Amino acid sequence: MHGNEHSREIKIGILGATGTVGQRFIALLAKHSYFVIHALGASQRSAGKRYAQAVQWKQTVPIPSHVRDMVVKECKPEHFAECSVVFSGLDADVAGEIEDAFRRAELAVFSNAKNYRRDPAVPLIVPLVNSSHFAMIPQQRAQHDPPLQKGFILTNANCSTTGVVVPLAALEKAFGPIESCMITTMQAISGAGYPGVPSLDIVDNVVPYISGEEEKMEWETLKILGGLTEGDDGLKVFDMHAKSPLRISASCNRVPVVEGHTECVSIRFAKRPPPSPQQVREALTAYTSDAYALGCPSAPRHTIFVHEEADRPQPRLDRDYQMGAGVSVGRVRQCRVLDIKFVVLANNVAIGAATSSILNAELAVVKGIIS
Amino acid sequence: MHGNEHSREIKIGILGATGTVGQRFIALLAKHSYFVIHALGASQRSAGKRYAQAVQWKQTVPIPSHVRDMVVKECKPEHFAECSVVFSGLDADVAGEIEDAFRRAELAVFSNAKNYRRDPAVPLIVPLVNSSHFAMIPQQRAQHDPPLQKGFILTNANCSTTGVVVPLAALEKAFGPIESCMITTMQAISGAGYPGVPSLDIVDNVVPYISGEEEKMEWETLKILGGLTEGDDGLKVFDMHAKSPLRISASCNRVPVVEGHTECVSIRFAKRPPPSPQQVREALTAYTSDAYALGCPSAPRHTIFVHEEADRPQPRLDRDYQMGAGVSVGRVRQCRVLDIKFVVLANNVAIGAATSSILNAELAVVKGIIS
Amino acid sequence: MHGNEHSREIKIGILGATGTVGQRFIALLAKHSYFVIHALGASQRSAGKRYAQAVQWKQTVPIPSHVRDMVVKECKPEHFAECSVVFSGLDADVAGEIEDAFRRAELAVFSNAKNYRRDPAVPLIVPLVNSSHFAMIPQQRAQHDPPLQKGFILTNANCSTTGVVVPLAALEKAFGPIESCMITTMQAISGAGYPGVPSLDIVDNVVPYISGEEEKMEWETLKILGGLTEGDDGLKVFDMHAKSPLRISASCNRVPVVEGHTECVSIRFAKRPPPSPQQVREALTAYTSDAYALGCPSAPRHTIFVHEEADRPQPRLDRDYQMGAGVSVGRVRQCRVLDIKFVVLANNVAIGAATSSILNAELAVVKGIIS
Amino acid sequence: MHGNEHSREIKIGILGATGTVGQRFIALLAKHSYFVIHALGASQRSAGKRYAQAVQWKQTVPIPSHVRDMVVKECKPEHFAECSVVFSGLDADVAGEIEDAFRRAELAVFSNAKNYRRDPAVPLIVPLVNSSHFAMIPQQRAQHDPPLQKGFILTNANCSTTGVVVPLAALEKAFGPIESCMITTMQAISGAGYPGVPSLDIVDNVVPYISGEEEKMEWETLKILGGLTEGDDGLKVFDMHAKSPLRISASCNRVPVVEGHTECVSIRFAKRPPPSPQQVREALTAYTSDAYALGCPSAPRHTIFVHEEADRPQPRLDRDYQMGAGVSVGRVRQCRVLDIKFVVLANNVAIGAATSSILNAELAVVKGIIS
Repeated sequence: MHGNEHSREIKIGILGATGTVGQRFIALLAKHSYFVIHALGASQRSAGKRYAQAVQWKQTVPIPSHVRDMVVKECKPEHFAECSVVFSGLDADVAGEIEDAFRRAELAVFSNAKNYRRDPAVPLIVPLVNSSHFAMIPQQRAQHDPPLQKGFILTNANCSTTGVVVPLAALEKAFGPIESCMITTMQAISGAGYPGVPSLDIVDNVVPYISGEEEKMEWETLKILGGLTEGDDGLKVFDMHAKSPLRISASCNRVPVVEGHTECVSIRFAKRPPPSPQQVREALTAYTSDAYALGCPSAPRHTIFVHEEADRPQPRLDRDYQMGAGVSVGRVRQCRVLDIKFVVLANNVAIGAATSSILNAELAVVKGIIS
Repeated sequence: MHGNEHSREIKIGILGATGTVGQRFIALLAKHSYFVIHALGASQRSAGKRYAQAVQWKQTVPIPSHVRDMVVKECKPEHFAECSVVFSGLDADVAGEIEDAFRRAELAVFSNAKNYRRDPAVPLIVPLVNSSHFAMIPQQRAQHDPPLQKGFILTNANCSTTGVVVPLAALEKAFGPIESCMITTMQAISGAGYPGVPSLDIVDNVVPYISGEEEKMEWETLKILGGLTEGDDGLKVFDMHAKSPLRISASCNRVPVVEGHTECVSIRFAKRPPPSPQQVREALTAYTSDAYALGCPSAPRHTIFVHEEADRPQPRLDRDYQMGAGVSVGRVRQCRVLDIKFVVLANNVAIGAATSSILNAELAVVKGIIS
Repeated sequence: MHGNEHSREIKIGILGATGTVGQRFIALLAKHSYFVIHALGASQRSAGKRYAQAVQWKQTVPIPSHVRDMVVKECKPEHFAECSVVFSGLDADVAGEIEDAFRRAELAVFSNAKNYRRDPAVPLIVPLVNSSHFAMIPQQRAQHDPPLQKGFILTNANCSTTGVVVPLAALEKAFGPIESCMITTMQAISGAGYPGVPSLDIVDNVVPYISGEEEKMEWETLKILGGLTEGDDGLKVFDMHAKSPLRISASCNRVPVVEGHTECVSIRFAKRPPPSPQQVREALTAYTSDAYALGCPSAPRHTIFVHEEADRPQPRLDRDYQMGAGVSVGRVRQCRVLDIKFVVLANNVAIGAATSSILNAELAVVKGIIS
Repeated sequence: MHGNEHSREIKIGILGATGTVGQRFIALLAKHSYFVIHALGASQRSAGKRYAQAVQWKQTVPIPSHVRDMVVKECKPEHFAECSVVFSGLDADVAGEIEDAFRRAELAVFSNAKNYRRDPAVPLIVPLVNSSHFAMIPQQRAQHDPPLQKGFILTNANCSTTGVVVPLAALEKAFGPIESCMITTMQAISGAGYPGVPSLDIVDNVVPYISGEEEKMEWETLKILGGLTEGDDGLKVFDMHAKSPLRISASCNRVPVVEGHTECVSIRFAKRPPPSPQQVREALTAYTSDAYALGCPSAPRHTIFVHEEADRPQPRLDRDYQMGAGVSVGRVRQCRVLDIKFVVLANNVAIGAATSSILNAELAVVKGIIS
């Protein structure tokens, strides 16, 4: 993280503030250099209570002292009128309507929910990868009548997608299109929220299935790694990597790990001959995100940290490196079926969720989309 | 398990009787219909002690009462002269010499160690798959001077290999050669023996590396699924699946599970178009092992049990089905990169180790190789 | 388990058949020598479905084949009219009314729920301890108008209480009243049912609190170990160990263990000097339950198994001994504050729940209470 | 932690630098305000290698950059001549001789090993409790011939003792002597070092025994909570709490938790009537350590943090509070057998090990024992 500090404070609100992602937003933003927690939204049941009473706090740091006594509001735009940024950790069953209402009320919504990820006017941005997709926002605003001036929705990706697209983006940048990609995940229980996975299902066990997860990974990766092209009608569209078709096959598993998704990835490049493992390692290490280059304070110095030890990355040891804002890669080696295989570790609750939203908002600030 | 009972008792010995695999042999053989535990071998340190004193028993059943007071011997052939079968659970660092000495002393050795798996005269038999490889034994005996009459060494496969070759064999039988196979394993801690994996390495963690494991899987699978062909010199050789090259890429991980290796497998068939998921399910269910067909008492009725539920097999729930002697498969579906993918579960300490040795010995009995 | 077989079949019903305890009843009763599963009851949502469709089966054995297609009924007495025994695995929020309705319909109800444990007319029976409390049943029946002929409710104890009362009963039998008892439990997640404990609360964690559990242990122990005395009005009452007051202090913790409650117990006897650790060991080993003496087929041969090894009992290794029907004790030694301390292990889903109900029903059969 | 900064740097050495405790020393001291890592000692096997090559680093932060390339020395005093303080994370089998050699070479040794804890001239100091025991050091020095000028050995307590003596000291300070204390521990695997506890012993398990641990807790507590009195011969002796005998009974268990020992404690005061739970809570909260009062930079602001929630402290959530330098207490309530019971959580690798040594050295600095 580096210190290109913003000169003034920006007030932010958090939707779903008592949930797992909401708690993480609070823990992370409590020390942010310019975002200031100004309003907390949750369900009707929590509204009106002080935050410390409303929440079942499950973070490993205490509730920030200035947040303890903030009064929780219902998730209605009027309570967030003074906020320039709204972070949403809402569950998918309510996120759709609420986030849209906030957008219509001219609020900039950074969402973790899945509801708008497939919306053709909503960017799906992994801040270490595709900040160029911010270019869709004017068109999203223009679709409203009258056109929105400040409101928009921007989503980040599913936690397991985020881990894998970062090295894939680095490798496409260095070696051109990837043609095929096989991914097997070993995902942490925190990815399912709270109460989430029942302990009887996961202690001394592996569950080789996570509902909807494989489809998300296979689809979101194409949107993120794809370009933003302009149609004959002058409208921008996400091209889903169409210029060079990319086949992705994901197998998703839940394992008894608290935090940190581990993914075994194997890829085939379009380019023949493909790069060597050493070239891949160097390209991964050299990759720098726009978020870091542009001075976002939450961006990790090492977008991708490449381990040399044979048995790394490991979630327990590596998930907190750089506060979980980067991605770890290890075991880069040849694959006998495709070209190259490696292991990725990404902190699902940091870069896989709240940290990505925060970075996206920081990008919006440096790009002048939020003022 | 069915009841084609053998009419008389066969005395057996166990090498490495105090180790993890040795303990499992004892627990399994205590109730065998015709194998009778007659001699126990261990290191010099244990020799001379009663078994209950020598062992740090870690099984979930008590030490069988008639074994408690058996006196442990050193692993020398003279102490096992009355045995018709010797099961070896020895560690690789001592297995090489001791097993060879037993073979030379005209004992039939069924080994779990890796030492002789790559020996061109030693069959590597997964009893649910390639019992035809018993045909190599006469040649192995003949290589000695004077030729051995009864002695031989036969190995079973690495625990992670065993899980995957069973469905692969079933599918090759039904649909012809497999061309490519990607495997990602999530292996139980018991696969590393005792003390094995330090708890600090695996509680709340995944270790994405098991030394030598990927190489074993990639090599052993070819030997097991390959044929036994005759060269110009009249000598039999294991052809390593040479007639139709098979590329295998394995990624091996350790997860916090006590017992049961889970493996995500994706395959491409030579045959175009490939079979559908439903055809694959049917072929897996229909597959029957020679071991069962020939009436081996430890053979599972369902060689492969195919789960219909979306989230199975799971190690905690499915590892003990049929006493761990079969293999479970689930989530058979299309793969966007290769043809078909599925999940395999095999009990690494049962069919992945001791149960396979016992089944191999039962096969040797029914085939008349042991008398 | 021994073989005093009953000559004829007795039809039984299971209430809450799709829940955790209900599933365990089914798994255990599938092979019972004379109880035959005849009717399954569950909530309205499940009623009318075949059992295999209605249940999320989480046992390590498959659904018994003859149960798979049984049609689940609502929990109304008319659907269980042919049953002589009804086992209830209902949750406390519905057990009160339903069990009472079944009793009024002249059904013998063996309940795992807590609702009637404190009822002064309902016996709270740990079958390895206080079968004499069956004597309360005539009085319970007589309280109804008209008096019941066959109907009654009988409960078993909380899973953590069960583990500790067995050795306490053995020691009181041998050495007279216990005066003080300190208990610290380390309880398995299965004690909380399904979905029960969220995995985020227990992986890599201890939760030093289980709602209501300490009170249950402190109260139930007195009812179970106390006598059944007759008041001046000729009515029987549970005396709550009143003749010799017994102070109990429990501290209950949840630990990441799937099955098997471990409890550290320290006691002070009224008798001075107190027995030695060796005398305690001998008394525990010598103790035999009525359930075994009377030939109940599910009674364990060793009511209490006393371990000599320094580090036993352990839940993973010892919970399945005797199918979890007995209790394990180890580390019997002097206590510097009270007299004697030791470790108890009891399988919370076997003797701590379903097995106790079944044993209670077997006792009712041998005592002629059920015909 | 507060900021009474020392004006100059003090060079320190670490013995056993590649071990578990040694690694923790390095991670903690890398950012210390005045202690500077100057020399690293390890076994002959590691000596001569760069630290990053010699160590199997298992911390969740990377090796501090300036330590990576330091050359590891053998544990001989001549290599540490420039150090004013030596921290020892040596194993007990070598600590005795090496630490004595360092003392004789006029080095101040702060040891985590058990070897000198029972030595009548060596203080056993939990820095949040008994800094008064530093007064023994002149006598320890004087016992040598010629008397030592700067050398001495000072030990900290066993990790499980540390957790419990802090609240006991607070309560004795407020309410006078404690008469009896029952402790049941649930200890983390990291307490056993690396490789330490085999995973097969602890995944899905509890081990109700830790060799020597109960004796250590029962003995060390008396030395720490006792006074330093002067005999007729003018020599100081540790009185082992003799003026008011204190009976302690400990039951030690290993549980599947990575870090943080949880302990259930029940006590009886000499004072009648005893304090109420609320008075106990207040006394615990009010307690401040000398280490904090004297401005030691590593001392926690809250020596004891008292939780109000029913289900805290929990190791996963609370072990890192104040970087693990304080102690958490919760569930303060009446005990039916003794007077008061509560739950303690202490981070076994922080305040239970390395942090205590560092605090002891900071105390030595502020007290002028080290210059």
